[in-house]
Amino acid sequence: MPKIAVVGATGYTGFELLRLLGSHEGVEVMALTSETYAGKGVDEVFPALSSVHDGTLVKYELAVCEGADIVFCCLPHRVAMNTVPCLLDAGHRVVDFSADYRLRDFAVYEAWYKTKHTSPERIADAVYGIPELYRKDIKRARLVANPGCYPTGAILALAPLLRARLIKPDSIIVDAKSGVSGAGRKADLSIQFSEVNEGFKAYGVGTHRHTPEIEQELSVALGEAVQVSFTPHLAPMTRGILSTIYAEGEGAASASEVRAALRDAYADEPFIRLMPEDAFPNVTQVSGSNYVDIGLTHDKRTSRFIIVVAIDNLVKGASGAAVQNMNLMLGLPETQGLLQPGFWM
Amino acid sequence: MPKIAVVGATGYTGFELLRLLGSHEGVEVMALTSETYAGKGVDEVFPALSSVHDGTLVKYELAVCEGADIVFCCLPHRVAMNTVPCLLDAGHRVVDFSADYRLRDFAVYEAWYKTKHTSPERIADAVYGIPELYRKDIKRARLVANPGCYPTGAILALAPLLRARLIKPDSIIVDAKSGVSGAGRKADLSIQFSEVNEGFKAYGVGTHRHTPEIEQELSVALGEAVQVSFTPHLAPMTRGILSTIYAEGEGAASASEVRAALRDAYADEPFIRLMPEDAFPNVTQVSGSNYVDIGLTHDKRTSRFIIVVAIDNLVKGASGAAVQNMNLMLGLPETQGLLQPGFWM
Amino acid sequence: MPKIAVVGATGYTGFELLRLLGSHEGVEVMALTSETYAGKGVDEVFPALSSVHDGTLVKYELAVCEGADIVFCCLPHRVAMNTVPCLLDAGHRVVDFSADYRLRDFAVYEAWYKTKHTSPERIADAVYGIPELYRKDIKRARLVANPGCYPTGAILALAPLLRARLIKPDSIIVDAKSGVSGAGRKADLSIQFSEVNEGFKAYGVGTHRHTPEIEQELSVALGEAVQVSFTPHLAPMTRGILSTIYAEGEGAASASEVRAALRDAYADEPFIRLMPEDAFPNVTQVSGSNYVDIGLTHDKRTSRFIIVVAIDNLVKGASGAAVQNMNLMLGLPETQGLLQPGFWM
Amino acid sequence: MPKIAVVGATGYTGFELLRLLGSHEGVEVMALTSETYAGKGVDEVFPALSSVHDGTLVKYELAVCEGADIVFCCLPHRVAMNTVPCLLDAGHRVVDFSADYRLRDFAVYEAWYKTKHTSPERIADAVYGIPELYRKDIKRARLVANPGCYPTGAILALAPLLRARLIKPDSIIVDAKSGVSGAGRKADLSIQFSEVNEGFKAYGVGTHRHTPEIEQELSVALGEAVQVSFTPHLAPMTRGILSTIYAEGEGAASASEVRAALRDAYADEPFIRLMPEDAFPNVTQVSGSNYVDIGLTHDKRTSRFIIVVAIDNLVKGASGAAVQNMNLMLGLPETQGLLQPGFWM
Repeated sequence: MPKIAVVGATGYTGFELLRLLGSHEGVEVMALTSETYAGKGVDEVFPALSSVHDGTLVKYELAVCEGADIVFCCLPHRVAMNTVPCLLDAGHRVVDFSADYRLRDFAVYEAWYKTKHTSPERIADAVYGIPELYRKDIKRARLVANPGCYPTGAILALAPLLRARLIKPDSIIVDAKSGVSGAGRKADLSIQFSEVNEGFKAYGVGTHRHTPEIEQELSVALGEAVQVSFTPHLAPMTRGILSTIYAEGEGAASASEVRAALRDAYADEPFIRLMPEDAFPNVTQVSGSNYVDIGLTHDKRTSRFIIVVAIDNLVKGASGAAVQNMNLMLGLPETQGLLQPGFWM
Repeated sequence: MPKIAVVGATGYTGFELLRLLGSHEGVEVMALTSETYAGKGVDEVFPALSSVHDGTLVKYELAVCEGADIVFCCLPHRVAMNTVPCLLDAGHRVVDFSADYRLRDFAVYEAWYKTKHTSPERIADAVYGIPELYRKDIKRARLVANPGCYPTGAILALAPLLRARLIKPDSIIVDAKSGVSGAGRKADLSIQFSEVNEGFKAYGVGTHRHTPEIEQELSVALGEAVQVSFTPHLAPMTRGILSTIYAEGEGAASASEVRAALRDAYADEPFIRLMPEDAFPNVTQVSGSNYVDIGLTHDKRTSRFIIVVAIDNLVKGASGAAVQNMNLMLGLPETQGLLQPGFWM
Repeated sequence: MPKIAVVGATGYTGFELLRLLGSHEGVEVMALTSETYAGKGVDEVFPALSSVHDGTLVKYELAVCEGADIVFCCLPHRVAMNTVPCLLDAGHRVVDFSADYRLRDFAVYEAWYKTKHTSPERIADAVYGIPELYRKDIKRARLVANPGCYPTGAILALAPLLRARLIKPDSIIVDAKSGVSGAGRKADLSIQFSEVNEGFKAYGVGTHRHTPEIEQELSVALGEAVQVSFTPHLAPMTRGILSTIYAEGEGAASASEVRAALRDAYADEPFIRLMPEDAFPNVTQVSGSNYVDIGLTHDKRTSRFIIVVAIDNLVKGASGAAVQNMNLMLGLPETQGLLQPGFWM
Repeated sequence: MPKIAVVGATGYTGFELLRLLGSHEGVEVMALTSETYAGKGVDEVFPALSSVHDGTLVKYELAVCEGADIVFCCLPHRVAMNTVPCLLDAGHRVVDFSADYRLRDFAVYEAWYKTKHTSPERIADAVYGIPELYRKDIKRARLVANPGCYPTGAILALAPLLRARLIKPDSIIVDAKSGVSGAGRKADLSIQFSEVNEGFKAYGVGTHRHTPEIEQELSVALGEAVQVSFTPHLAPMTRGILSTIYAEGEGAASASEVRAALRDAYADEPFIRLMPEDAFPNVTQVSGSNYVDIGLTHDKRTSRFIIVVAIDNLVKGASGAAVQNMNLMLGLPETQGLLQPGFWM
């Protein structure tokens, strides 16, 4: 059975990975690292998993991954780029959760992340980990750059429409609302319960680092450079991202053409669900699941398409996508361990 | 001391009105009506008010308002238009919370509200209740149409920019997120705790009835017809509306010009607060207060202005505006009873 | 493959049953009834399940259950007792979610539920559906009375201690805090989001109907009549029950004896997890799972044991228990479809 | 006008103090200190207060309090005891929010707080700041030890019953549920939104430091030593504490005697509200207010009284009590600035 190591296993993406792998019977979790909790049992850090995983967390060193077929690297950006090259050099295949290998142009990375990239030569080998777009490449990739949570929904909703030239590329606005788990598992005043509860705010207005990631993939879809307005918001909930996307139709594009473009693009995709006409998704319905639910309408008064996409930021927006990528890399059924429905209606 | 009656006092706007009037020393609450709770004490229905109001709720009939200088009519649209004319005919001045007298063109009302207007001849006498725009008219109005919660923030943020021709009128998108109290106090499965909690959804996409209200006032500001895309969302919180507004600049309009237009328009307004540069409001900071907090930026990459406005839907979006209007109508200091800061930071 | 019918499938317990059965590969869901949503697809009512169940809801009549090996009856109390006898007479085995067959003494039922029992003669055939206590009987039962959500945690925590005579029977206090989904899926003002959010209250103080159910099973454990103080509370969360239980020790009973009694009683139980010393459960860690997590301490200053039990009210407190009972009745592995860990840490 | 300084003004109690003083017209806030935010405007740290307070935060040194009639010391325990003596020696009257001067026996303090008390000689001068119990002493106190949030509700509910010998002192159990703001304003993983939301847990079981504070005041009421079981819980809400209290009746004490004892004790108290029979408070109804709402019943089956008390932990449980104490110390009307009703119903 293929062996899995998780580097940085005690954040929210680590928890979610272990939760999902708890129902996946095709791989064996052989090593879990944590700098903070090394020496503790998984069940001490995550009591929910006490019946599912019984390992002990260890400090990271390359040797603990020895024998791992896939290493999930759940380290933050800037840190990942110092660890991933060694893992690759040691022969591991890596699914990297950070942003460090997502942007093909390292100058773009350096500009948005305000840091020097220490291994830009590895970027060319990385495959952007949206299976619906890069399935073939992911299967044989040695390094998969697992996509950001915000880009996932926006790209999946828009790429087919740009490919079919149904919307005006310079008219795209992505207004996204995220649960708080997207901010990561860390002591930080701004995500304290009492700061977030009964609140709602925009942040990173015009400056959020997921912007170039969305633009990169939309530009690939269109075949020329696309720029978008992207505004993330923090909502008082733990999980989920709802993205409300506005775009003007190209020529006389109709709602049924847009709907057809999405339906055709995703007809065989197990995780993408187009909602019925006039229905729009609630994040509850994808919570805890790997599904991407899309609803859309055409506002005839203003000639704009309004597309609403819901994902769970920790599943399809992070650890679910990672497992889906892992399945592809290992030649396992792509949906293995990922077919549970959402937690809520 | 001027006397006040509240018709339909046991909804959320009724509660909020009574809460605010509890700190207002210039008027006397003389009658409260409720069809559901008639015969009960206010303190039984709203224990929070047990130390503040000691009246008993009565069924509405015109006679119970006798002697009232101002009648707050907190009935739903369609119902209000059958009650307000009698109140006016009996000589009362009325602040009406419904949508029935907000739209100047009754055909627009009938189209969006899908009902026949039974007293269109009264519309001409109604003043739209945003004091920052219609102060002079409100002072002498016999009927004030208290504005909708969503329109309040959007109109206040955009009217000065359209007046100064700083933004393109056909580029306006209002993406609004509301707390659940905006749906009213009623037994309804869709706003049950378990349906809303940990969820986020768009609703009324392209069809919400506050759209023509926003457009009417923006058209007044510009001097010609304006159409907007308006998408409301339901957020898992009780109070507050955050509106994220996108608009393209007209010509070479800069962020400082937009900021200056807002600053100039509202320099003397006690309830409108422009946030510092690069700061954006959180709904927490206006929760429970009558303030309107506005932040803005110019996204140079896409040449769009992004304006974020926060209000409390029940205060400046309903009962606070109503008290402000009442103060103007009665010749009281406009801010009386309304200067409390927000509940949270 | 055994066939399953669900009568009253569109409440929260129905959703949860379908969610769990979505990962259970040993049975076939053949019929789902709903009076409210008959004619609609499951995916229309519960979009989360659109990839999992594709049936159409039908109005209940006995014939739709024809061929079902197990019928889950998710009707409210008072209604269930009119339907269950017919199902039994038609040869079905039934797991009944209502309270109608839980209390062995129909006079107790009639006193607490303030209604006449219409089929008291069936009570003797019903087995109380806690597998940890009645596994053998459940296997061959024709009617299983699925336990109430509050009783489940309290009984599982206390029965072994009463059996071992480690606590004083007249000293037991159960202070329980429940998520709002426990109130059911219905339009009701008191469970509206804005009524519950940022609130916390006790309800049914001294009068809640789960009291006699707890007392019945604790009396069985002790071998003589037990009475408890039980106070339920409504917490602003969707799922979960945390019960904080107070009891004085009998004689010199120590924490390690109490711990040992629980450990021994549940050593082979797959769903009961005793927390480490000085650790207490959070409802997050059982959310969405069938686990029962128990922590305890002895307050030496006051000679009281304090036992804290967490369950998910919809899983082990309702639909998970029902699936566990179904597995036993059908001779399937008891844990089938039920081993997913909690949603959150 | 009396002058006020606030030392440590940027925690939640500091915010709440400033919020309340914003509606109090009898004092002047002359200095606000913060080690973290020194140099910033109050409006930058707390945008909600931008229209209410316009001061700048400064680092604490004794000199900044010069001229202050009352100093609110909002420092944590252990820190306060190093600052308060200097303030007293400089002639200031102090309301101290910490636990450092609440316990009359410093050995009890040292045992529960696991630290050496550095100024035990000042304890004798401190008055415990519950005006309903110590009004006369507070008026002339130089040092008021503002009570803990949990003790406030429990003591106010129980003291009159112990004084009247209506309940058995050794039977008292206080099961308390608090909002998260009680944990303070700090970066701490355990109170991160995603850790708390949709969760519920007990903490400090049998060991919480508010236990000796409750016991001290109940012992004073009874005239002999009282011990209680006290279990605090963390609820997913920002504000409020609901305490559910269990106690056996002494002799044949009846519900009406208990009710009468509370009514008599608090007949003239402006902030204590006894709920009608069979009614119990929700924390919503005291949220943001200084009220203490009490409901009670007698469970005849088990001969226990069940008393439910709701307060806002930040108001009557902290800053509201502090303002009430300040009013008494300054000879102002005791209710000044404190009569606003709760935020919610």
